[in-house]
Formats: sequence, structure tokens, C-alpha cells
Amino acid sequence: MGSPWNQYNTDNALAETIKPLDPEEFRRQGHLVIDFLADYYKNVEKYPVRSQVEPGYLKKRMPESAPHDPEPIEEILRDVQKDIVPGITHWQSPNYYAYFPSSGSIAGFLGEMLSTGFNIVGFNWMSSPAATELESIVMEWLGKMLKLPVEFLFSGGGGGVLQGTTCEAILCTLVAARDQMLKKIGRDNLKKLVVYGSDQTHSALQKAAQIAGISPINFRAIKTTKENAFGLTAEAFRATVGSDIESGLVPLFLCATIGTTSSTAVDQLSPLCEVAKEYGIWVHVDAAYAGSVFICPEFRHLLDGVENANSFSFNAHKWFLTTLDCCCLWVKDPSALVEALSTYPEYLRNKASETNQVVDYKDWQITLSRRFRSLKLWLVLRSYGVNNLRKFLRGHVKMAQNFEGLIGMDKRFEVVVPRNFATVCFRITPVEICRKHQKVSMEEAANNFNAKLLEFINESGKIYMTHAVIGGIYVMRFAVGASLTENRHVSLAWKVVQEHASTLLMAP
Amino acid sequence: MGSPWNQYNTDNALAETIKPLDPEEFRRQGHLVIDFLADYYKNVEKYPVRSQVEPGYLKKRMPESAPHDPEPIEEILRDVQKDIVPGITHWQSPNYYAYFPSSGSIAGFLGEMLSTGFNIVGFNWMSSPAATELESIVMEWLGKMLKLPVEFLFSGGGGGVLQGTTCEAILCTLVAARDQMLKKIGRDNLKKLVVYGSDQTHSALQKAAQIAGISPINFRAIKTTKENAFGLTAEAFRATVGSDIESGLVPLFLCATIGTTSSTAVDQLSPLCEVAKEYGIWVHVDAAYAGSVFICPEFRHLLDGVENANSFSFNAHKWFLTTLDCCCLWVKDPSALVEALSTYPEYLRNKASETNQVVDYKDWQITLSRRFRSLKLWLVLRSYGVNNLRKFLRGHVKMAQNFEGLIGMDKRFEVVVPRNFATVCFRITPVEICRKHQKVSMEEAANNFNAKLLEFINESGKIYMTHAVIGGIYVMRFAVGASLTENRHVSLAWKVVQEHASTLLMAP
Repeated sequence: MGSPWNQYNTDNALAETIKPLDPEEFRRQGHLVIDFLADYYKNVEKYPVRSQVEPGYLKKRMPESAPHDPEPIEEILRDVQKDIVPGITHWQSPNYYAYFPSSGSIAGFLGEMLSTGFNIVGFNWMSSPAATELESIVMEWLGKMLKLPVEFLFSGGGGGVLQGTTCEAILCTLVAARDQMLKKIGRDNLKKLVVYGSDQTHSALQKAAQIAGISPINFRAIKTTKENAFGLTAEAFRATVGSDIESGLVPLFLCATIGTTSSTAVDQLSPLCEVAKEYGIWVHVDAAYAGSVFICPEFRHLLDGVENANSFSFNAHKWFLTTLDCCCLWVKDPSALVEALSTYPEYLRNKASETNQVVDYKDWQITLSRRFRSLKLWLVLRSYGVNNLRKFLRGHVKMAQNFEGLIGMDKRFEVVVPRNFATVCFRITPVEICRKHQKVSMEEAANNFNAKLLEFINESGKIYMTHAVIGGIYVMRFAVGASLTENRHVSLAWKVVQEHASTLLMAP
Repeated sequence: MGSPWNQYNTDNALAETIKPLDPEEFRRQGHLVIDFLADYYKNVEKYPVRSQVEPGYLKKRMPESAPHDPEPIEEILRDVQKDIVPGITHWQSPNYYAYFPSSGSIAGFLGEMLSTGFNIVGFNWMSSPAATELESIVMEWLGKMLKLPVEFLFSGGGGGVLQGTTCEAILCTLVAARDQMLKKIGRDNLKKLVVYGSDQTHSALQKAAQIAGISPINFRAIKTTKENAFGLTAEAFRATVGSDIESGLVPLFLCATIGTTSSTAVDQLSPLCEVAKEYGIWVHVDAAYAGSVFICPEFRHLLDGVENANSFSFNAHKWFLTTLDCCCLWVKDPSALVEALSTYPEYLRNKASETNQVVDYKDWQITLSRRFRSLKLWLVLRSYGVNNLRKFLRGHVKMAQNFEGLIGMDKRFEVVVPRNFATVCFRITPVEICRKHQKVSMEEAANNFNAKLLEFINESGKIYMTHAVIGGIYVMRFAVGASLTENRHVSLAWKVVQEHASTLLMAP
């Protein structure tokens, strides 16, 4: 195509312009941003937790197009403070109790810095042996900490991989299960495959099923009940599977959850796995939130039964001090993943892969390119040590229990479902509301009032919680997990809740 | 479940242990790592480019399990230097010419630091308005820089999103196209859908088709030829589509590539899109590598025809100074993505989403959780400015041209396919080899010799290139793109190639 650059030719065009990795400039600007972030953490408590901007706020502050000429980092950082920070919902604030918090840490941050600094693209072993090997080692360490059955570890024929999020982990294992099954029963039967979860299972399962081409009419969200604390029971599962088989369908995949998103409910893993085994159903155990806490022996029993599952995942970026994104997935049969996800184009061929001496993680996940994620997990494990990590998690559970205790002392409130970990689902009781509103049904009035109260609290910017609807009941979720949260914040949070409730209850 | 923590109860368990986000400790350790990385960049030229470790090297150096107690950052950094750095293939080395380089930069790094520091989980607008809004703004800026048709921009009814990698972008658009089609022809026809690429298309397409449940027998890798510089022609595409229709199949999706992985070949976009339009086929344009250079007006004509495509993506982490991962995807019809990928569980319901005032990017991609990726792209655009970014890209093209010039002066070598961008595919000519080996066919001997030569060069650690096989010809790929590469490195690289070739040619 000729030499289109010629019209712009200068002898050393590059040297004249930018040195994008000049070490001394890197050092100078890097220190500036470290100080910026250290100051951010120092002040984060002062910001409204939930951002208070209106939709479209940023467009009004930004130019229509990218600048033609360079701008200094000092000016950019001023704009970050002025324009970006107000639009941030401060997940790192000690007063953040929404969704599940993302527990950042110094070690996790430093690991991410190193990974970004090396900036390798670790699709296979060859592209950076350390990335693959450290990942395998760290996943083995972590698997042992969680007392996963040896079949999930490399040392027992399985293995662990770091993916971005649980959505990817579920999609990958579902596709592996799908292709394994279709190999047996023929591709024409794709439309017969059925995927199971409960009405409490994360939407990631439904989305994965959609992407993997499972027919939407073959997606089962089995009903849970208050009697079973919103956990999926083996009985309900067996009944649904039986009915599907009668209809000529093929049960494929169950996603069992330990610590659901709405209420941290726990599915009955052991008996569920028994049923699944009977029917040859792949069981994935999603402990996205709660998984971390199973490094504490006193919680580990909730994971019993996992020995009969096929795969297990949790998000280290939720409650394990590792910054987003970092989902830890273990499978018993890596070859199922590899058979469904492997590609081996010529340009990636290399001696190490050819002799089967190495793991090529590209075949364990959706994407080819992959970040050096294990560094951050390795730094978290080494910087804090197993003992302190346990203490850290127990500290959050203790704070949630303290909050629960405070609720118990105020008769206007109730805890709606049992607290399993560090998340409390609570509300103002219908009785309390009905003193105020006597026109609609008690439960409906309670739901409306609690929704209004939550918005009133969040608007204040003092704390941020989110909600769930469990068995028709609207609850406020108080999820302890932000790294900066201490007991004094929990006490303060409770005062904020009480004060806002009083104001609203007294309103005309 | 009672109070399992009680046995470990202390009044202030957390305070006794770790303060994972203590601002002053963050500052101290952050500065240490900045200095570590600045020194790494200063010394990176001294390391063998391709790691020289053997499979399993790291296991021998690491303990069997995670430490029980904390270890200081100083010790961890010593281990990074001692154990990790030797296992790294130095993608940031100025002597790195393998695959496509990942061009790191100070601005990209700082953006990643800010994103990691804020550590928000930006699944929807509400979870951090700035993350969504900055992403939309930056994608609009970038779309304008690339002179994308307005239909791809928010301002024209389309829109841009940042995903991790091209694999995700292709999977998402394929699933969108699939569901749009199945809505018309019924889900039972999933097995009839056909996906098209060429034999040069990235394996990401095949993998996406596998994941999306496209029958493997309906995946077409249409043959390209040397006559058409290994670009896919409209004639070959039309013929394949015609034959599929005759067989009762349903043509669904074409992935056209501008700058293939093997040889940076360019598919005939305009006529391909014409054919696709005729048959209602979704066209995704994958410019993973070359996309960046279309901000230079002299290259933009290669993208002509995109106005008739449905989606377009390129990787800013390849050749746009933005660290891994950062794939920029634009679509004309965001509702196709949203219809295929949207989920809206109760716990994410919020006023802003409900009133349709905002973009919820979770519905534009596979995963729910998403990093604040736009920060790094924003910092790159502002720190360097459009003008310098163009100069930077042109500098790489010029260096590749210089390398091409050097090849031309040594009769033993030849450039195998025309250079389009900053990647040169070359080899020692068969004639030269046949002076040495007269027993096997000329081309086979040349392939074997060039493979041997490449391994010999890479083993030296002085430079790192990878290979491709194009139309049966084994070529060495010299991909200029590392941020630290200057003309002197290119001259040195050529000397390394020549010297190794001479040694091998003279070997008995």
C-alpha cells in the first residue's frame, strides 16, 4: 500500500514527540498519583457515599472531543478531583454497606500495579511463564486454605484458574458441561438441555444460559421458601428434574449458591449434589460472596458436599482484599473446560505447549488475552498471612452481629432472615408502619415504607445500603465488608438508620 | 446459624490485626512499588526478552502453602525481582517484536492505578455515575478520532463500550446477532445458523461461535490467497453464502478483519459489507491490532465500508498506549446487545435505570461487574493528545519500514507479504536455503530453516519475534509496537537477525 507515512516523515518522529515509558517521568507521575490516592483514602469518609450527581452531569463538564495537544498530569488530577470524584459512589468508604462491598487493600492494589507495570499478555505459558505458574501455585495455596477436596487441586487431577468475574466462571463451566453432554447425546439435542438454579440464584446463571444457547424455556428458577431460609432444597430440585425427564428433556447443569446475593442464603449442598450425581448433572457451586470466609474453620461446614460438585468459584474481589476483578474457579476435570474452549492457532504454537508440560490458561476461559491476576492474590496472601485474613473476616462478621444486636434493641425493627455471614437483612416491622398507614395491606405498606426509608437514608450520603425483595418482603441489606469499616462506623450507621426512621415515621 | 465467631471473639479483633487501607501505609508502600517499576523500566533492556526458564521453575522456589503470618513488602519485592522477573517475557522491552506488542504507557498505568484505587464495581450507572458517563464520553471522542460513521456513536443512535478483549466483543455481537435472527426464524433453527470468517481470522471467532452454540459444522473459514494478499474477497464470501443458502442454512454473522494476526492482511470491507447487506448478515469489523492507526487520516481509507457494518472493535491495549485489558467496541444498534444480554434482578433496580435516562453497561457485555476502564483511556487521550498519538503510531510504521529497507539490502532475505502497518513478515529465501539443503523440497526446507533460525534468535534473549504460516510459508513476524522501541533498537534487531542467520547458514 505504498508509504502513506511519507508525507509526515521526519527523521526521528518518535523522539520528538512522546516518551510514553520514560522511567524518571514514570517515577515522578507515579508518586503524584500514589499521593493522590493516599489522600483520597484519608478523606473518603467525608464524601457522600452514594454519588449525588444527576444523569448527564459529566457531559456538561467535558469538551466535545479529545484534546489535540498534551495536558499535564497535575491538571488531569485536578479534574479527577473536581469532575470524577463527585460522580463516584465510594465503594471504599467505611460507610459503604451496599450490594456486597469490594474490599480493597494495599496489597491488592500493589499487586495490580505490578501486573499493570509488567503489562504482559499471558495467554499461554510461553508468553510469560511466571504468570501461569504463579497462578497455579496461588490457586493451590488458596484451595488448601479452603480445604477444597484434593480432586479440585492440580495435585489431585483438577485445578484452579483466575477469571474476571463469576459470570465468566459460570459461563465457562456451563459450556464445558454442555459440550460434554452433547458429545454423548448429539448436538441436535441442544434444545433439550435444562439449566437449574433457584429463584435466589444470581442472574449470572440466566445470562450464561442465554449466551450458551440454552433455550429460555429450559431455564429453571426453582422456588425457595422462608421455611428453608430461602435455600434450595434437594426435594424441590428432585421434583423439577423428575418432571423435566418425564417431558423428554435432559437435565444438564445446577448452579448451587452458598451465600445468595439477596439474603446470603445457603442451598442444601450435600443433598443437592446427591441428586445431581444420580442424574449426571454438572454442579457448579457459586460462593461468590461467602467463599472467602471458608478459610475460617468454624464456617467451613457450610461447604460440605462440595466434594460431589464439579466446580466451585468465589470472588476474591468481594471479601478477600483483592481488587476487582478476581474470580477464583476450581474444576475437577480441566479437560472438560479445555475441550469446550480450546483453540490452537498456528501463531501460538510453541515447544512447551506441544510437549504438554504446561497449563495454557487461555483454554480455561473465554478470552485469549489475560492479565497477570495472580500477583495481587499472591501479595494479599503474603502481606496479610492466613491468620490475619481469618481475623479480618471474623471482624466483619462480628460487626454485622453487633448491628444485628442493635436492631434487636429497637422494637420498631426486625431482622427478616437469619444472618449467615456479615450481611444483615432488616426492616421496619409492618406493625410499626400500620400505626401510620391503615389503608393498604400491612405487608404492602411495610414494603413501600421501607423502600422510602432506604432512599431517604441513601440520599443523606451518610451511609449507603441497597435492598432486596425476599419472599415478597422488601428488606434493607446491611453488608459489612468495606476494608475501612470499623465498629464505630457500624454504630454510627445504626444511628443514621434510627434517626431517618424516626423522622419518616413522624412525618404527616 | 448461631454465632460461630464467638470462640474467637475479642472486643476489637479487626483493629488488632490489619489496616488494609491505612492511608499512610498505602503511601509508603505505593512509593516503593513505583520506584520498583521505574527501575524495572530502566533495566528492562538488560533482561533476555523471552523468558528463559523451564516449565515448573517457580514451584521449586515457592513454599507449599500460603504463609500463616504477614511478610513485609520489602521482602515480597525482593522475591518479585528474584523469582518472578526471570519468569517474565518482557513485553515492555524495546527489543520485543513478538505477537502484537502491548504498548504500555505512563498515562495508561496511572489510569489503571486510579481505577484500582477507587475500586468501584460499575455494573450500572447508579453504582458510580462517573464510570458510565466517562466511558460514553471517551468512546464518543475516540469514535470521532477514528471518523466512525455517526451511526456508531451515541449522538447517532449507536454507542461505544469498553470490554476486556476482542474475544468478548465478538462473542457479545455474535450473541446479539443470533438472538435477533432467532426471533425472526424461531429458536429451533439455531442449528442452521452459519458464521463466516476467513482462514486468517482470529481464533476468537471460532471460540465465540463454539460458546454461542453455533454448530461446529456451520463455521466457515473461507480460504484466502496470496493473489489477494490474504484478504477475504467478496467473491469468495458470496460463493460460500450462496452454497449455504442452497443447503437450507441461514447465514448469520461475518467477522471481517482489518489487519489480521498472521500478516496484518486487510479484508475487502466495502464489497464484503455489500454482500452481507444483501443477505441480512451481521458484519463485525475486527481491527484489534490496526484499529488504532485509523486516527491517522492517511490510513483511514482502509476502514471504508465500515458504514455498512453493524459493529466495530479494536484493542486499545495493543497499539494505543493503554494497558491490558481494553477493547473498544461500537455498535449501531445497542438494543440488539441489550436484548440478548440484559438481566434486571431486583437488587439492581434503581430510579435512574427505571427512567431510561442512563446507559447500564452491564447489558452490553458478558459480565455484570466491570472495572472503571475509561479512566486509562481518558488519561492516554489527555496526556498525549491526538497529535502526538498520531506521531507515535507513525513512528512505529516508520521503524517497520526501516526494517523492511534493511531486509531489502540483504539478498538472502525477502519480505513475504506486503507490509500494511508496523509489522513485517519476512524469511530467508528458499534459494538461500537450497544452497545448503538439497534433499527436501525447496519450500519445506525453507520453512524448517526459518523455524530453526527464529528459535535460535529467540533463545539468545536479545530480541523476541514470533512466527506465522501464511499460505504454507513459514514467516518470522517483526511487529514494532513496544513503547520503548526506538530506531536504534530496530537497527540492532536487524543485526541480531543477520548474525544468527549467518551462523546457521554456515553451520555444517
